[in-house]
Amino acid sequence: MSDTYGKHITLTLTGESHGPAVGAVLTGLAAGIRVDEPFMRNQLERRRAKGSISTARSEEDAVRFLSGVYRGYTTGTALTLMIENKDAQSGAYEAAKNLLRPGHADYTASVKYRGYADLRGGGHASGRLTAPFVAACSILTGLLRSKGIFIATHLAECAAVSDLPFSEEPAVLEQQIRSLNETAFPVLNDSSGRLMQDAIRLAADSGDSVGGILETAVIGLPAGLGEPFFGSVESELASLLFSIPAVKGVEFGAGFGFARMKGSRANDPLRMKDRQIVTSSNHNGGINGGITNGMPVIFRTVIKPTPSIYMVQQTVDYEKRCNAVLQISGRHDPCIAHRACVVQDSAAALCIAELLCARCGTKWQEDGAWNMD
Amino acid sequence: MSDTYGKHITLTLTGESHGPAVGAVLTGLAAGIRVDEPFMRNQLERRRAKGSISTARSEEDAVRFLSGVYRGYTTGTALTLMIENKDAQSGAYEAAKNLLRPGHADYTASVKYRGYADLRGGGHASGRLTAPFVAACSILTGLLRSKGIFIATHLAECAAVSDLPFSEEPAVLEQQIRSLNETAFPVLNDSSGRLMQDAIRLAADSGDSVGGILETAVIGLPAGLGEPFFGSVESELASLLFSIPAVKGVEFGAGFGFARMKGSRANDPLRMKDRQIVTSSNHNGGINGGITNGMPVIFRTVIKPTPSIYMVQQTVDYEKRCNAVLQISGRHDPCIAHRACVVQDSAAALCIAELLCARCGTKWQEDGAWNMD
Amino acid sequence: MSDTYGKHITLTLTGESHGPAVGAVLTGLAAGIRVDEPFMRNQLERRRAKGSISTARSEEDAVRFLSGVYRGYTTGTALTLMIENKDAQSGAYEAAKNLLRPGHADYTASVKYRGYADLRGGGHASGRLTAPFVAACSILTGLLRSKGIFIATHLAECAAVSDLPFSEEPAVLEQQIRSLNETAFPVLNDSSGRLMQDAIRLAADSGDSVGGILETAVIGLPAGLGEPFFGSVESELASLLFSIPAVKGVEFGAGFGFARMKGSRANDPLRMKDRQIVTSSNHNGGINGGITNGMPVIFRTVIKPTPSIYMVQQTVDYEKRCNAVLQISGRHDPCIAHRACVVQDSAAALCIAELLCARCGTKWQEDGAWNMD
Amino acid sequence: MSDTYGKHITLTLTGESHGPAVGAVLTGLAAGIRVDEPFMRNQLERRRAKGSISTARSEEDAVRFLSGVYRGYTTGTALTLMIENKDAQSGAYEAAKNLLRPGHADYTASVKYRGYADLRGGGHASGRLTAPFVAACSILTGLLRSKGIFIATHLAECAAVSDLPFSEEPAVLEQQIRSLNETAFPVLNDSSGRLMQDAIRLAADSGDSVGGILETAVIGLPAGLGEPFFGSVESELASLLFSIPAVKGVEFGAGFGFARMKGSRANDPLRMKDRQIVTSSNHNGGINGGITNGMPVIFRTVIKPTPSIYMVQQTVDYEKRCNAVLQISGRHDPCIAHRACVVQDSAAALCIAELLCARCGTKWQEDGAWNMD
Repeated sequence: MSDTYGKHITLTLTGESHGPAVGAVLTGLAAGIRVDEPFMRNQLERRRAKGSISTARSEEDAVRFLSGVYRGYTTGTALTLMIENKDAQSGAYEAAKNLLRPGHADYTASVKYRGYADLRGGGHASGRLTAPFVAACSILTGLLRSKGIFIATHLAECAAVSDLPFSEEPAVLEQQIRSLNETAFPVLNDSSGRLMQDAIRLAADSGDSVGGILETAVIGLPAGLGEPFFGSVESELASLLFSIPAVKGVEFGAGFGFARMKGSRANDPLRMKDRQIVTSSNHNGGINGGITNGMPVIFRTVIKPTPSIYMVQQTVDYEKRCNAVLQISGRHDPCIAHRACVVQDSAAALCIAELLCARCGTKWQEDGAWNMD
Repeated sequence: MSDTYGKHITLTLTGESHGPAVGAVLTGLAAGIRVDEPFMRNQLERRRAKGSISTARSEEDAVRFLSGVYRGYTTGTALTLMIENKDAQSGAYEAAKNLLRPGHADYTASVKYRGYADLRGGGHASGRLTAPFVAACSILTGLLRSKGIFIATHLAECAAVSDLPFSEEPAVLEQQIRSLNETAFPVLNDSSGRLMQDAIRLAADSGDSVGGILETAVIGLPAGLGEPFFGSVESELASLLFSIPAVKGVEFGAGFGFARMKGSRANDPLRMKDRQIVTSSNHNGGINGGITNGMPVIFRTVIKPTPSIYMVQQTVDYEKRCNAVLQISGRHDPCIAHRACVVQDSAAALCIAELLCARCGTKWQEDGAWNMD
Repeated sequence: MSDTYGKHITLTLTGESHGPAVGAVLTGLAAGIRVDEPFMRNQLERRRAKGSISTARSEEDAVRFLSGVYRGYTTGTALTLMIENKDAQSGAYEAAKNLLRPGHADYTASVKYRGYADLRGGGHASGRLTAPFVAACSILTGLLRSKGIFIATHLAECAAVSDLPFSEEPAVLEQQIRSLNETAFPVLNDSSGRLMQDAIRLAADSGDSVGGILETAVIGLPAGLGEPFFGSVESELASLLFSIPAVKGVEFGAGFGFARMKGSRANDPLRMKDRQIVTSSNHNGGINGGITNGMPVIFRTVIKPTPSIYMVQQTVDYEKRCNAVLQISGRHDPCIAHRACVVQDSAAALCIAELLCARCGTKWQEDGAWNMD
Repeated sequence: MSDTYGKHITLTLTGESHGPAVGAVLTGLAAGIRVDEPFMRNQLERRRAKGSISTARSEEDAVRFLSGVYRGYTTGTALTLMIENKDAQSGAYEAAKNLLRPGHADYTASVKYRGYADLRGGGHASGRLTAPFVAACSILTGLLRSKGIFIATHLAECAAVSDLPFSEEPAVLEQQIRSLNETAFPVLNDSSGRLMQDAIRLAADSGDSVGGILETAVIGLPAGLGEPFFGSVESELASLLFSIPAVKGVEFGAGFGFARMKGSRANDPLRMKDRQIVTSSNHNGGINGGITNGMPVIFRTVIKPTPSIYMVQQTVDYEKRCNAVLQISGRHDPCIAHRACVVQDSAAALCIAELLCARCGTKWQEDGAWNMD
């Protein structure tokens, strides 16, 4: 319950939207991991404002390492990165600072921080914090790829338009994952993508906003990660996913679809395939009893519509404690779901790295010669 | 990522389904909290097997305190409780112990624990661990009630039958919560309840099983609990909820329903009411930016159908590594959703107590005279 | 700051001296570690009251496993052990329960637990809690020995009598460590041991008590364990050592002797020996910059004299808030230092296991093929 | 076991001695604490190189806040501060970078970080990291003072010269503490101070170095802080104190002096004084059973002599794995003990703040009306 996630690998996010800088501190990395800065910039690019369906705030997001990186590799000590806030336009926020914006954290942060928080632009609760989050996690994403673990997220649904689902065919799924990580607008079916962007623009034209459902697939995980109960893979992933601003639901495999199934359909039968144990269906999303079973881990989140809309809204003046009306100006995304895909990928990478550390930490205790080199 | 939840208040669950005992260790309690044993037994009763729609294993669930309780009150030191396993019938499990039961953790636990786990009856991943969980959390539920915080869970949906939703009218919601905690079968509408039980029996008759959706409401929380990002109330609650066996999805407020909304409808307008700031709708489920806003906290989980069904299933023999068929015998619930309501209440109580400790821990730093007595 | 130690391996101690039982919960163990019960009993025997220099309370210390052990091996889930309190004589304590015993935790526990603690026999702060501590840690000691890591503690000083120091010759040190773990009274020089026991008996005869200094040596550790600053080996070990009741000082290597040295003597020169890097002296006790360097880790603690003495003492009546005199009866050790040696060994084992988990947890991130089996 | 200390209040130190910057991230602060920058600079000044007895590296130590501070007060979110490294002279270190300096962490860090660490100037293990440490803790020191808790450290012994001890008279002790925080060279007796500085210079003249013993007193603490066993005040303080580079021993109250005492002298008798319970002596240093008793908390650390001396030393060439000789050049303190006093004060402040959060966190559970505002 703090600004820090994790136990073996930890990530702390710092900064306010309109403060000097936003940043991240990552600990628990081994020494000698390659820090791929072009890849980091690429991940940040996928997160950033692009074209007419996203806002005009276009920070260059230049990442500066303050510690933990030397000659392109991690040193094994705490890694600090910082992104200076350059393109912050506080004027638009100052004008209406006592009017609580519905759907935002204005009211709750005012109560919690007793008036001392820097709430300009959403303050510490702002989506801007996802920039250092994505930057830091990119190191883990690269590390996982070098171990054969791949992650990708697509817009399963947006503005009521549906995308194709992930394939159940391993070779096809692998290709879909590869393509998604190279696609500008993260969908599996291009025409769905075009319909989605049309619907987003339509909402924008009426001063409104839309949300969506993101679906992530992870392949290459060994079986046996996670713990029953408190350390379940669902618990660990959901904990991070719900940290992403605007996420209001998380489901694994068939998810809420289980409510309409009988056990005879919900259960995933097991069978041998190429001397491996696999399941014939994957309703459980690759996780049984909180532990991975080797099948692709599949999960979905719902991203609520962006709260900042241009229509008139009923609200309260926090200082005067009376009813008021609000009409937001400034720059706001009509939809952030597509930008959130790389954030969700990042969350998955962080969580998996943490799970692998947990699994690895006890290996020295197991039978046989041990190697501490 | 372990057997322990929490940072300020911690709960560790121990034991295997067919081992000597299952237990819980609870730390972080102040001294002097009344330990209400009749209430604890009442909570365990709500969890236990009842009637024809639940299994016949009827442990008396006698709780024994080994530490932390003296003369009916907490001592302020670690509290240990233990429930001996008396009614374990290992025979039914022994017969087919190399056949991996689909939907269970047999395969994943075999990989993870490398053959050393006591997997009889589901071992440590068994739902039996929810007994000490409910027992320990009952102390927190009682404590929260004494502070005006009330929690209740109903079967929003089961076997495709829907219950009424929670009321948006505060006085009615309060009454609904009170009633649920006194009801045998946790629904708001009795006829829905009867239809559900009919559907469950129908599934049982065909050797199958069904799942459901549980909905929880929490009232009486102050605004300002939780932290943006990693300490968000959604993250904290979801982490615990996904620890409950069979939970495969968690959503807050409108949840996955947000995917079909526009921002103009999704946003909850704010207004003054009796000199308090409230919202006119509650799509955000009482949480903004990860922090409570004072409105009822509403969330739902999906419980997948019980994996143990009596129909023939395709599986694998773990020892021989070949395909096989399995037909389970023994005692199995056709549905556990109704029994899970008190488990979900318990999880909510534990999480809220943890959030309150976090909030409280910094109060001494705030301006004004401080009181350490 | 709780009842629990550790992050990767965790140990929670539970119970009160005169409550139903004292216990320990150990998490973070891999599956498949042999649980050597005869060795555990042997360790408890070393801790227990023996002969005329120790008290007459002679619990059989029968350990019962409630979870985490199956057919003689750890299951990989939380391990719970319990020792029932059988030989508790509460009468002696009841008589003078409002008189605060000097040097004990009576006053501080009364303030902290606001009157609700079970303080009979010292309650939760009692040395009795070292029994489950030693029992649980014995599993780790055995595990470490199987990896070539050996630990032993001797009474460096007791009642102003000094023992020989540990040898700087590796082969001799190894033999000394082996012998100490088989010795009844833990000294390197038998005549020092006899003098110490004489001095202890002398103090007992006058109704008084004495303390001592314990010195521990650990061999077989790889270099590279621990972290600079907060994760230093000294920090981790001291944290546990100061948890042992009666420990009031901890020093590493030359310790407080450094105050009288110059750098030219304090520094340990490095040299090659059999293609290994070693130091010619070991003033730093095997630790540089918080990280092990491969040399034996040497540290000392001071055990204060047992507070329970039979002489008349000035004190306060806690209920009446007035001055009073106290004369303790009951059974009390004139010295506990010799019994504390196995407790100190146990603490070292727990800490080292934790450090190894931390080191191991990041190995999967390092270059080269990785093996998750 | 990481770069982070604490559970309620956490502090993470980042940076390498010759990297871009050193920094600190502090979480767990309430909103609205005044950030006193002049006081922070004053604390850093006390730590810095001064005059002929300290090195010539004189960083301006300009602190820049990147997050968590707004208009002079904490925001209640993660606080990041950064100090750019400007006066780093890497040349002197580069020349002999394969020669392991005795007494330093060169060898251990080379093993641990497998060659990837930036070890120039000591890298992450450098004493330079105490600068952000002192800066961050200054906020806590100020906060504690506003609650009537005062801390000060003096050089109890240095280069074999002794200072006067802290007074046992409360009014005198209070004055001594006040004076120490305003003194350039932290001693209670000025002539002892002059003798110490002479002895330091003498050692410097011969190219050698000396160490010392620091003694800290804390007044104003309530009774009841800390927990028996793992959360003992000694454990918590020692954990932090041993994080300070060069600390090799920690003792409380009479410390190692207990080894020569009998219980009749070691015990602190209790008595009433002005309706408070106090002890007539304070051998236990204000702590019983790991819990504060309201008396001044007194502890001492030993600072080993600075390892960097100008004399020729035997060592090993790490790259060639052969014996070698080393003669260090560059700028090195002949003694750092006097500069470490403010570091030890800082550690005490951090630990106490953490203990108060722990104590405070459960207050809402206690009987009576609760106030969440």
